[in-house]
Amino acid sequence: MNKESLKIIPLGGLGEVGRNMTLLEWNKKVLIIDMGFSFPEENTPGVDYTIPNIDYLKKNKRDVLGLVFTHGHYDHIGGVPYIMDKVGNPPMYGSPLTIGIVKRRQEEFPLQPKLKTNEVKDGSKITLGPFKIEFFHQNHNIPDTLGMVIETPVGNIVHSSDFKFDPTPTNGPKTNFDKLNQISKRGVTLLMSDSTGAENKGHSLSEKVICENLEKVFKDTKGRIIAATFSSLINRLQDMITISEKYGRKVVVEGYGMKTNLEIARNLGHIKVKKGTIVKTEEIKNLPDNKITVLCTGAQGEERAALMRITSNEHKIIKLKKGDTVIFSSSIIPGNERAVQNLKDNMMRQKAHIIHSQMMDIHAGGHASREELKQMIDIMKPKFFMPIHGQYSMQKAHAELARQKGIPEKNIAVVDNGQIIRIDKENIAIDKKSMNVNPVMVDGSGIGDVGGVVLHDRLELAESGIFVLVVVIDKKTRQIKNSPDIISRGFIYLRESQDLLQETRKKINQIVSNSAKTKNSKDLKAELKSKIEKLLFNKTKRRPIVLPVVIEL
Amino acid sequence: MNKESLKIIPLGGLGEVGRNMTLLEWNKKVLIIDMGFSFPEENTPGVDYTIPNIDYLKKNKRDVLGLVFTHGHYDHIGGVPYIMDKVGNPPMYGSPLTIGIVKRRQEEFPLQPKLKTNEVKDGSKITLGPFKIEFFHQNHNIPDTLGMVIETPVGNIVHSSDFKFDPTPTNGPKTNFDKLNQISKRGVTLLMSDSTGAENKGHSLSEKVICENLEKVFKDTKGRIIAATFSSLINRLQDMITISEKYGRKVVVEGYGMKTNLEIARNLGHIKVKKGTIVKTEEIKNLPDNKITVLCTGAQGEERAALMRITSNEHKIIKLKKGDTVIFSSSIIPGNERAVQNLKDNMMRQKAHIIHSQMMDIHAGGHASREELKQMIDIMKPKFFMPIHGQYSMQKAHAELARQKGIPEKNIAVVDNGQIIRIDKENIAIDKKSMNVNPVMVDGSGIGDVGGVVLHDRLELAESGIFVLVVVIDKKTRQIKNSPDIISRGFIYLRESQDLLQETRKKINQIVSNSAKTKNSKDLKAELKSKIEKLLFNKTKRRPIVLPVVIEL
Repeated sequence: MNKESLKIIPLGGLGEVGRNMTLLEWNKKVLIIDMGFSFPEENTPGVDYTIPNIDYLKKNKRDVLGLVFTHGHYDHIGGVPYIMDKVGNPPMYGSPLTIGIVKRRQEEFPLQPKLKTNEVKDGSKITLGPFKIEFFHQNHNIPDTLGMVIETPVGNIVHSSDFKFDPTPTNGPKTNFDKLNQISKRGVTLLMSDSTGAENKGHSLSEKVICENLEKVFKDTKGRIIAATFSSLINRLQDMITISEKYGRKVVVEGYGMKTNLEIARNLGHIKVKKGTIVKTEEIKNLPDNKITVLCTGAQGEERAALMRITSNEHKIIKLKKGDTVIFSSSIIPGNERAVQNLKDNMMRQKAHIIHSQMMDIHAGGHASREELKQMIDIMKPKFFMPIHGQYSMQKAHAELARQKGIPEKNIAVVDNGQIIRIDKENIAIDKKSMNVNPVMVDGSGIGDVGGVVLHDRLELAESGIFVLVVVIDKKTRQIKNSPDIISRGFIYLRESQDLLQETRKKINQIVSNSAKTKNSKDLKAELKSKIEKLLFNKTKRRPIVLPVVIEL
Repeated sequence: MNKESLKIIPLGGLGEVGRNMTLLEWNKKVLIIDMGFSFPEENTPGVDYTIPNIDYLKKNKRDVLGLVFTHGHYDHIGGVPYIMDKVGNPPMYGSPLTIGIVKRRQEEFPLQPKLKTNEVKDGSKITLGPFKIEFFHQNHNIPDTLGMVIETPVGNIVHSSDFKFDPTPTNGPKTNFDKLNQISKRGVTLLMSDSTGAENKGHSLSEKVICENLEKVFKDTKGRIIAATFSSLINRLQDMITISEKYGRKVVVEGYGMKTNLEIARNLGHIKVKKGTIVKTEEIKNLPDNKITVLCTGAQGEERAALMRITSNEHKIIKLKKGDTVIFSSSIIPGNERAVQNLKDNMMRQKAHIIHSQMMDIHAGGHASREELKQMIDIMKPKFFMPIHGQYSMQKAHAELARQKGIPEKNIAVVDNGQIIRIDKENIAIDKKSMNVNPVMVDGSGIGDVGGVVLHDRLELAESGIFVLVVVIDKKTRQIKNSPDIISRGFIYLRESQDLLQETRKKINQIVSNSAKTKNSKDLKAELKSKIEKLLFNKTKRRPIVLPVVIEL
């Protein structure tokens, strides 16, 4: 490996879906691509988001030249309010819609510094230190998505962004294959391409197909239509609005994120709505059912989202009723299957009619399937290939496609977050040593202050609760001064467990009277903890966290 | 509705998958069909199982004649150790394998009364009060599964059990359609039929197809085979053993439940194994890789199961290595998708080869798909129809099939747990009033003592933890006697939050010195709680449970 090599360091988005952030480094100058977050998993209760770990940048005093965005989804922009000031608030570049969403989100963080935003579009070229970046239009399920070709001292790197090849998109231009071919002609050293769809056969569905199927539903429906999807799926929202207009339905939008996204996209001309189409929720009362579309969030069965409130009779104005047709125009995020099933069941109990994407094609993902991924590799003919964005199995499947397309195995880098890839004109290599990129957790206003200990405690508390006992002992006589105070939460309903409570008090008194004279309060606490734990386990087969407090007075 | 009507009361298994238990009642005499449990959902942390609510039987002093089992899966038998003595320990009837599994499980509950077990088989007839029951063989993915036809004063009721029509089962006889037709000829007043597969098109896969595909994998594999499936999938275990024998592989079994089930099934002749095929885990060291099959649990990504330990290098003897082929011969239970994906990713990182059921047909469910369900309705030609076993959407889909087959809507009862169905020879009706059948939670040795309050606390504790503060005040002077003790778990890492801690102490002292003189300790606690909650939220945007303890001395 040549000494003069380019480093690529993924901080997030590999081996996982979400939290995308990648560094390109040349001679200590760093370019950042995307800055996303991800939603937490089951084993991190209370955590709002996880964001990429930027210890490397903090410790190694790299010079951050700037941040470039591919598109405006939160798994690509969500880390901004938590990370940007820590990396010196460098200039950022993104399409108008991306920047619009970033800026709107930043308003919720008034203490953060003002962002240095710059808008770029298809064909824009910028130079940041040793990196010359040209942006190109890509299709995804949010408008204004940009791939990029980055001219570097070791050659051109193409970053695909999240993308699909849609021959008939319903909102915005289709893929410009001429442009892609031109880029290819300049020579591509490395292709970094979206792996999210690498396990899906064939070609992704075109938004036009989805739109036609949705229209069939609208055409045949006499009652209200309640259409749920992701609030970030701007293109689908446009479809729903267009079809509603065609069938004379007014549109009510429910869900804060969806309203905000629509407003930003509309201001930038990415959503086209006729005057009077979108009405306030109250106006629903004055409209016949066949003139109403409710666009809403909650297709994942989220507890507090609009769709759940409509279904469980908690929404102030909209209540589910017989004759309603509910459209789930979305995929189910892994882990949400049960919540979605229960939501649908409750709708059916109320005699609503349900249409979901297992019944007909009313949802398409935003990611290229296997045939498109192969096409991308065919077009770019890269020397090196790096599958990005996705679970490890998706990256591996994508790597296999690249091999089938003639890229030698040694030129393909399937890596995890924190691995360091070095590229020169001839070689690609992965450092033996990875760096620590443990995800950083955001909980409330704390960034990174919830770690292993706190999470471990939360999981233990959830399992069997907590049992606190407080004894006061006389400093001199070493006698107990009060009847022990006992507080328990999440363990057992104390009011209905008086026997257990009494037995525990008795045991505490006995331990204190036996041991307080010979033991200091630390040792006494240890004895109380272990003996009471044992007693409670014997009686209940549960292991609450037992916390003894010994006060000497 | 005739006064002389039969009551059917589902206590579990409707609107859900699992926890099956149904009552048939005539003139206060009750027959119980199945007694299952279900595994808990995300919102019931710490709970081991949920079991059916039997308040009705306890309060109304019904005479329980007996319990009949359809088959030996835990969603049909798991409630026995928790419920049986509470309903008077009546005689129970099941196939030898079912009874074998019930008895083995009961050994773990030495304080429970001895069960009055009776073995029945295909063709057995028993009489329990007004109910004459005849059992018939059904195919499922555990051997010795029995459907039943129950002669009642209002006519014959056919209960399908969990079933599928398998023209080529690999373990046990195929469906006896002659028998089913004979039963039909006697006249069927009500068909209660398994809805689990009612949303699946076509015909379920035959176990023979699965077996052939598994054999292809075995034939082409040079290294070790690690095959994971459900421990209750006895028929699949038989397939794996048979194929291993054919290709000269010894079989190691890993996982307590799987070992136990194999042993019971083997003793009863439901599993056929050649002498010497099953070897101890240690012997793996003396065998070449292509002579080893590891049969194990953990296909759901369970934290402590064999497959996880093998993958994460925590198994004493078996460690995953390059060249291993891992077969996931199972479906993924909703909610486990993420865990399974992560497990597979970790295997791939270790260069194991993975084969799962999305890649080829190496798993079939045990439940009839739509065509088989229609066939069952065609055969039985019931007057009334009641879709059982499954989520509400599955019951609805099943009801729709019955309608297509000519059963009038008014003769179909799609009901939830706790609804009371009344049948006479002419009518089926559902009582307006349902009874409370809230699931009963089992946690450790407690049955039903974990309720809404405890669970709510557990979820709150998991979200933001707990913050306990203890102050001692002098009874007479109303002055604080100590520096407040503060204990917190799952909220914030206190050692790294000294500022917050100090500020909180200061605030506590201030509150006590301002208010202790005028307030009793209850009011003082309330003030401490609300003000400290506020302080902590302002500083952290988190809401731990704040518990003040005020001791007066």
